[in-house]
Amino acid sequence: MARDKLLFTPGPLGTSKSVKEAMLRDVGSREPEFIEIVRGVRQSLLALGRVSQEQGFEAVLMQGSGTFALESVLCTMFPPTARLLVVSNGTYGDRIAKIAEILGVESSLLRVDEQEPPDPARLSDALERDPTITHVAAVHCETSSGMLNPIEALGAAVHAAGRSFVVDAMSSFGGVPLSIEDAGIDVLVSSSNKCIEGVPGFAFAVCRRAALLAAEGNARTLSLDLLAQWRGLESDGMFRFTPPTHAILAFAQALRELAAEGGIAARAERYSANQRVLREGMGLLGFETYLPESLQSGIITSFREPADANFQFEEFAARLSDRGFAIYPAKLPGAECFRIGTIGHLFERDIRALLGEIPAVLKKMNVVLLENDS
Amino acid sequence: MARDKLLFTPGPLGTSKSVKEAMLRDVGSREPEFIEIVRGVRQSLLALGRVSQEQGFEAVLMQGSGTFALESVLCTMFPPTARLLVVSNGTYGDRIAKIAEILGVESSLLRVDEQEPPDPARLSDALERDPTITHVAAVHCETSSGMLNPIEALGAAVHAAGRSFVVDAMSSFGGVPLSIEDAGIDVLVSSSNKCIEGVPGFAFAVCRRAALLAAEGNARTLSLDLLAQWRGLESDGMFRFTPPTHAILAFAQALRELAAEGGIAARAERYSANQRVLREGMGLLGFETYLPESLQSGIITSFREPADANFQFEEFAARLSDRGFAIYPAKLPGAECFRIGTIGHLFERDIRALLGEIPAVLKKMNVVLLENDS
Repeated sequence: MARDKLLFTPGPLGTSKSVKEAMLRDVGSREPEFIEIVRGVRQSLLALGRVSQEQGFEAVLMQGSGTFALESVLCTMFPPTARLLVVSNGTYGDRIAKIAEILGVESSLLRVDEQEPPDPARLSDALERDPTITHVAAVHCETSSGMLNPIEALGAAVHAAGRSFVVDAMSSFGGVPLSIEDAGIDVLVSSSNKCIEGVPGFAFAVCRRAALLAAEGNARTLSLDLLAQWRGLESDGMFRFTPPTHAILAFAQALRELAAEGGIAARAERYSANQRVLREGMGLLGFETYLPESLQSGIITSFREPADANFQFEEFAARLSDRGFAIYPAKLPGAECFRIGTIGHLFERDIRALLGEIPAVLKKMNVVLLENDS
Repeated sequence: MARDKLLFTPGPLGTSKSVKEAMLRDVGSREPEFIEIVRGVRQSLLALGRVSQEQGFEAVLMQGSGTFALESVLCTMFPPTARLLVVSNGTYGDRIAKIAEILGVESSLLRVDEQEPPDPARLSDALERDPTITHVAAVHCETSSGMLNPIEALGAAVHAAGRSFVVDAMSSFGGVPLSIEDAGIDVLVSSSNKCIEGVPGFAFAVCRRAALLAAEGNARTLSLDLLAQWRGLESDGMFRFTPPTHAILAFAQALRELAAEGGIAARAERYSANQRVLREGMGLLGFETYLPESLQSGIITSFREPADANFQFEEFAARLSDRGFAIYPAKLPGAECFRIGTIGHLFERDIRALLGEIPAVLKKMNVVLLENDS
């Protein structure tokens, strides 16, 4: 069997060997050992968000992908009287609005351009103008472009206006320092297979207990009922429905490895270093980033496709894949781009290895970059 | 690390070492290799149900537990005009009715006692009496008691009445021979971690394509939209949202091992042999089964708790757990029971090992069984 490709993607990501080896067991979901592991995972998630049960926060795991957990929040915590304002500058912000529409949650959209960070002052204005808005939702790292949105400033605006703040921190939580309470966040959603470097299979919400308790009777589905899920976990430590036991064992190991690395600060530094090496190396090859450096996350970076007509992303990606490197397409309006992720079990040497392959691939494709510069 | 307990449960179950080892990789969800694996898994599921795309059937994978897939069927395939009749003789039948209620699907319940199989003639009568019923749902193996329901006879009644038949075959599919089309089934739902012996993380529906295509505009959620999920898989082979890549790799390996064992017939024989050894052994120890042998599946068996006041299930289970054997509680009306599963990576030697521990455990508990017989 060939060595697995290195995944420069927004997820599923590469994970350590030891994280995967944690799955070489079958643990019963009712066994005291498993219940204790789940309890520990939930505690760790609170700690990573710098909150605690004493401060009134809870961590609830939900089977499925991140979108399942996000939808569980919207379908559980939004009574018919709720009105949501979605702040969006990309695909993932728009997806929140789409979920709201499908669930019948009344919502409006504060949409800004993909290359622009949402403006907290405009948000404050919008909240002042429309007192019927009860909740605001925003994405921390807009994975479609790679922008790290100013979530603390947005949270301050929401908090000052006395509304609830729901944050999709799917691709950032664990990889970007964030204090949930200080950022004015009432509900944060993230996933097992992003910056915590577990495998995919579940996601989670870290939220105010009061917001959960106020959600009685709202849920529009059985599976995605976040309040019932929390009650199940609280009552006997068990999931209501079969949990992905192996993914949870892997996640518990991933949390230990995150702590051993030095926690979120150290991991954020690794990702930023990865991204810096990538940005500089791609720049030397003649690629331009979609976003200016000041708006760029360390999570994933969008690069403009070269103007050379010989450049076709599918061929570029396939040739890199053949050489053992998986990169990702991008769909950004008004710009042909592709994306390269720098999270997961990736280190500077991996970034340099990828960068080292690109000139040969471009040559095979007869793509000339630097000479095109004016 | 101690050896893992043997899981005599309804799932998550024990799986082979090689199934778990298939998870020692990180595969990108957009990689051609992964897309091909998913395609192969979907084809295998059709073949296991003895149907094909040519016959108009499709297999759709859904993230989450079996309940998520079941709910995705009810929330996608049931327009507001649908009326569901749920045939139930236990917890899992009742759960279908509960999902319908939460989703706002109009439904009624044909409920029979836990110890009684649903009667196809009564079902025919009910369908004749109420022509507004559009769908019937039933459980194949009612995992709460262990009864194998007469799904073919029920299907014939539904088919004869020209209604659609939705079957929860969660704990039976892959472990009990079944021809989906011959049984008059329009939609069958099962899970990755039951008789196919994969790990938990996703579930699936095998269904008539026409039923999918007729479902346009019904879905009440984004995540659980089975039609959109199918369209995504059909368009480019990819999931709409992050799939549990590792659980799918394990499942592909589990499917290979099911074929190597001799397919469903051979596996059903192993499970039946497991159950026979269990039933006979428990009988010799003085335990009574909840169901008569004629109604009993090879999947899981409910045993009545001994009358001896010294018997407490929690202690019994904890002592067996300490010795490396996980068994399950049961909640059956009018009878104190517990359950022992015989599916997953279990063989006759494992059943005998469990049986071998029970006399010593009962002795520690000062429980006398046989001497109590009148």
